[in-house]
Amino acid sequence: VNSLMILQQTTQTTPPPDVVDFGVGQPGLDLLPLELLKDASATRFAQGDPSFLAYGAEQGDGYLRTSLAAFLCQAYSTPVNPEHLFITAGASQSLDWLCTLYTQPGDTIFIEEPSYLYAFRIFSDHRLKVVGIPTDENGIIFEALAEALRRERPAFVYAIPTFQNPTGTTLPPLRRERLAELSRAYNILLIADEVYHCLHFDVPPPRPLAAHTAEGNIVSLGSFSKILAPGLRLGWIQGPTHILQRLTLSGVVDSGGGLNPFPSAVVRTVLEEGRLQGFVDQLRLTYRTRAQALSAALRRELHEWVTFREPQGGFFVWAQLPDSMDATQLRTEAERFKVAFQPGERCSSRSQLRNCMRLSFAYYDVPRLQAGVARLHEALIAHG
Amino acid sequence: VNSLMILQQTTQTTPPPDVVDFGVGQPGLDLLPLELLKDASATRFAQGDPSFLAYGAEQGDGYLRTSLAAFLCQAYSTPVNPEHLFITAGASQSLDWLCTLYTQPGDTIFIEEPSYLYAFRIFSDHRLKVVGIPTDENGIIFEALAEALRRERPAFVYAIPTFQNPTGTTLPPLRRERLAELSRAYNILLIADEVYHCLHFDVPPPRPLAAHTAEGNIVSLGSFSKILAPGLRLGWIQGPTHILQRLTLSGVVDSGGGLNPFPSAVVRTVLEEGRLQGFVDQLRLTYRTRAQALSAALRRELHEWVTFREPQGGFFVWAQLPDSMDATQLRTEAERFKVAFQPGERCSSRSQLRNCMRLSFAYYDVPRLQAGVARLHEALIAHG
Repeated sequence: VNSLMILQQTTQTTPPPDVVDFGVGQPGLDLLPLELLKDASATRFAQGDPSFLAYGAEQGDGYLRTSLAAFLCQAYSTPVNPEHLFITAGASQSLDWLCTLYTQPGDTIFIEEPSYLYAFRIFSDHRLKVVGIPTDENGIIFEALAEALRRERPAFVYAIPTFQNPTGTTLPPLRRERLAELSRAYNILLIADEVYHCLHFDVPPPRPLAAHTAEGNIVSLGSFSKILAPGLRLGWIQGPTHILQRLTLSGVVDSGGGLNPFPSAVVRTVLEEGRLQGFVDQLRLTYRTRAQALSAALRRELHEWVTFREPQGGFFVWAQLPDSMDATQLRTEAERFKVAFQPGERCSSRSQLRNCMRLSFAYYDVPRLQAGVARLHEALIAHG
Repeated sequence: VNSLMILQQTTQTTPPPDVVDFGVGQPGLDLLPLELLKDASATRFAQGDPSFLAYGAEQGDGYLRTSLAAFLCQAYSTPVNPEHLFITAGASQSLDWLCTLYTQPGDTIFIEEPSYLYAFRIFSDHRLKVVGIPTDENGIIFEALAEALRRERPAFVYAIPTFQNPTGTTLPPLRRERLAELSRAYNILLIADEVYHCLHFDVPPPRPLAAHTAEGNIVSLGSFSKILAPGLRLGWIQGPTHILQRLTLSGVVDSGGGLNPFPSAVVRTVLEEGRLQGFVDQLRLTYRTRAQALSAALRRELHEWVTFREPQGGFFVWAQLPDSMDATQLRTEAERFKVAFQPGERCSSRSQLRNCMRLSFAYYDVPRLQAGVARLHEALIAHG
């Protein structure tokens, strides 16, 4: 056994320290709440009740769902019933699971064009045919979606209504209403990935699709990965009773019990002690500072090349190069300058958007973000 | 919101305190290592490294895999390479995941008749056709399997070679060899669920199928649910490189990172501090005492009705009533006497074995097990 090789793999999701990788869409190590979770964990263990080490209740711990519902009532500015929450192992697991239970290989699904790049492989694991619906600066174009629905009936529609990944776009209230109506009218499952909803910088976004999940065929995916820590692998599905019942009756829960009771117990304590909102507020300030710094650096140094809309929340800047330029090629060039990003092509359902770049500001502090932009500048000059 | 209803659901996986439910196949609350995990958790948090709160390495933390491999080398009496281990969210998640990646709806799979009752729903979620292969007192009957393979090629064979659930049977070395050969000869995926392997009472079982996983098409499922705590939702798949690569490249890992980094970090500490083996040894003693007490009570009080083989490890006694009796009916009758069990029918791929009962001895202490048998006695008399 080559133990060096193994140990190196423990850090494979962390970019090399000498690279600024704008492609990393995750919180920086400095933003992970080690002390907060240390306290919550110690408190939970000190209570002397070992039940969170046993198989968990199918729908997730009732106390966690109760305190999470109270948190979401505030965050969403809309009532949230704990009975409509199902605790999951994060949004990726939720999406994969919904594919298992609600699709067959060969089914078509509709997504936004562009969309979350890592979702494509989940869809491909389930052998789904992905059709991208055009978007504009306000998100998914309703008429295009309606037309596509007249042509073909998808197994579901997957959308990221708020601070979209990768574009940062937020769907206005009217489009949300119409999306919900369309799901009802066609009786089509709508999966709203709302994991960035709580991460607005100044103005809160319109009410989430979660507000429409009590009946019909709409589910909202939430995640503690974006508002607490990804390593917890904890999230939730908010949805109507018939869908939560299907999850409850699924084999994996029937056999293994509710998902992730141990992290659930720790997060329940964070919520019950009222410490989540303060942490999220702190995160929002940090991300705002980072987003503003990245935007300012892009405007200052790359205005000859890129156009973008300054994000109002979430993790990403979606930067467009001139149509003639190829971001995938630029990325290869940029390696020499120790800077990286996600090329738009990877976010496209049809390998288009080749002149776009997804730049995350979540992972690095301001000086590193600025250094990254300076390197991108060098790469662009070298690229010619 | 009816908060009482919600709070009650937190304990829905725990049987009512006045019932002895032999159907509960999980460790009792008294066997959950609260102090051990409290210590390990505190140690891990005190190290000040927040990386386990970030997205994890795809294959699982390298340090965890290294210390787990060392543990398994001992437990399995065979070399285990950390590169052949993939950290999962438990055996149920592993099985569900392998179904996603290696089957299509409509595929046939082969299992032992009888088999693990909760696996059926996982297979049904994936719309698989389940064919049960006959077993005898030494497990799966090789000739029956070979004949079935000549008739039909399954997507995989699912077997529990050691202390089988529900029968407690252990496959002898020769049948293990032949099973591995058959998997190679037909190039068929063999999923060996080996979660009870470490729970022998006196004589260690033959080498696990895990010993055959380095090449070919065999994977072994392991779980910390049976040797530490189910609430951790942590397990592993031991398998050949091509299968672990498929898992690494799957959408759910691509998107969400390696599975359960937070529990992984805590369990890594338990392993690195050398505290797992001692805990497992203690569990084995407890389960042996419980199995012996249950067996003795069955022999003493129910000898007119039941025959069974005394288990040598694992969680279960498989008790057979006279052919004319129906355990599903008996179970309904038994409710009045506040005793329950899993009727054999639920463990059968074709709703047979109606005269059998699966009795778990893992959940209750000796006096409760004895009280449960006394109640079964009453129920049998009432049943006539």
